[in-house]
Amino acid sequence: MSDAPGAARPAVVLVSGGLDSATCLAIARAEGFSCHALSFAYGQRHEAELRAAERVATALGARQHRVMRVDLAAFGGSALTDRGIAVPEAPVDGIPVTYVPARNTVFLSLALAWAEVLGAQDIFIGVNAVDYSGYPDCRPEFVAAFERLANLATRAGVEGAAPIRIRTPLISLSKAEIVRRGLGLGVAFGDTVSCYQADEEGRACGRCDSCRLRREGFEAAGVADPTRYC
Amino acid sequence: MSDAPGAARPAVVLVSGGLDSATCLAIARAEGFSCHALSFAYGQRHEAELRAAERVATALGARQHRVMRVDLAAFGGSALTDRGIAVPEAPVDGIPVTYVPARNTVFLSLALAWAEVLGAQDIFIGVNAVDYSGYPDCRPEFVAAFERLANLATRAGVEGAAPIRIRTPLISLSKAEIVRRGLGLGVAFGDTVSCYQADEEGRACGRCDSCRLRREGFEAAGVADPTRYC
Repeated sequence: MSDAPGAARPAVVLVSGGLDSATCLAIARAEGFSCHALSFAYGQRHEAELRAAERVATALGARQHRVMRVDLAAFGGSALTDRGIAVPEAPVDGIPVTYVPARNTVFLSLALAWAEVLGAQDIFIGVNAVDYSGYPDCRPEFVAAFERLANLATRAGVEGAAPIRIRTPLISLSKAEIVRRGLGLGVAFGDTVSCYQADEEGRACGRCDSCRLRREGFEAAGVADPTRYC
Repeated sequence: MSDAPGAARPAVVLVSGGLDSATCLAIARAEGFSCHALSFAYGQRHEAELRAAERVATALGARQHRVMRVDLAAFGGSALTDRGIAVPEAPVDGIPVTYVPARNTVFLSLALAWAEVLGAQDIFIGVNAVDYSGYPDCRPEFVAAFERLANLATRAGVEGAAPIRIRTPLISLSKAEIVRRGLGLGVAFGDTVSCYQADEEGRACGRCDSCRLRREGFEAAGVADPTRYC
């Protein structure tokens, strides 16, 4: 709790425990928001990222951090929620099997529910459409469509409340730019876990697409990579 | 399980246990879909409606019925998820406190996730914008915006998969028309529970907005009302 009650505008910030969402949270804080951090236990391969999300939220001064359970593994259909599907360790064409059906739609919907109750106009999500895995729900057109939906789905659409904004400060940055931006805002990237199949200590495999994007980002930024590998 | 595997196109059908969604499921079945019924334990006041949903899904030949837990009561902000807010027993102006922030957005998002995994193009939801409580997320413009989002959020938007359709067969019917339609399709409305504050036996209060709309629907349809009241 770093703000006095009522001192700052509230925002909901999706925090996965990875590098991008940590930087996104730091940006929201730098803009002066009182940040309500939201993470999901959705049946992902490991919960090390949830412990990382807790560290990140605390270190970056979130007002509170909440972990919601929503069992996307009951549906499966992704290497991240079905252990019967291997995480690819080489680039693939098209949408990879690590895509989790409708994940960002589900996460933003729940962020929207919380935002409406909090009276928050701003929802931050650290999606990126440059150095990314090609997921459909990271693209600017997806975000624009969700924002439009949000303003029809809620009181904002009927009672003239202030409109909901889906804030994506990273969407057009390269991974190297995200790394530099985060470092400039004091993000301790050693706290974060990006790997799709980290061990329970949060040590990365070094081979999956998320590890590759992260490693290349640090290299291109010319800064030391604090990632702990298995 | 009323279909041989692969015999019919799959659809996801949201089933709340109430009158409207039961009729919606009956319509989907009458159109020949293999129906995957989805209900939510979201922190509502009573779980009698979930038992009703199970009865309805079984009686109307759903291929399977799944209940997902997603704790909207953690956010509160509605008389249906916060027992500190009373359910109104007289009509109100504007959006009533029984509105649950972003509920249909959350439910449709999770239906979308399941639909994508199942390879289902069709998602049925029994929203109605005639005899309804004025919730923003029951309006045709909300549904159209969600359908547009769904086709940007998923593989359909990138890989040219068959588009997702949000099917709302009840949206422009009066409650009396819904009752007649349901009866014509063999819905046993005695199985359903509409009341916002039913007791654990599923007996209705007879005073809330949902009870009022239901009672007026049966009266206008000129058919016996099988509702059990407290």
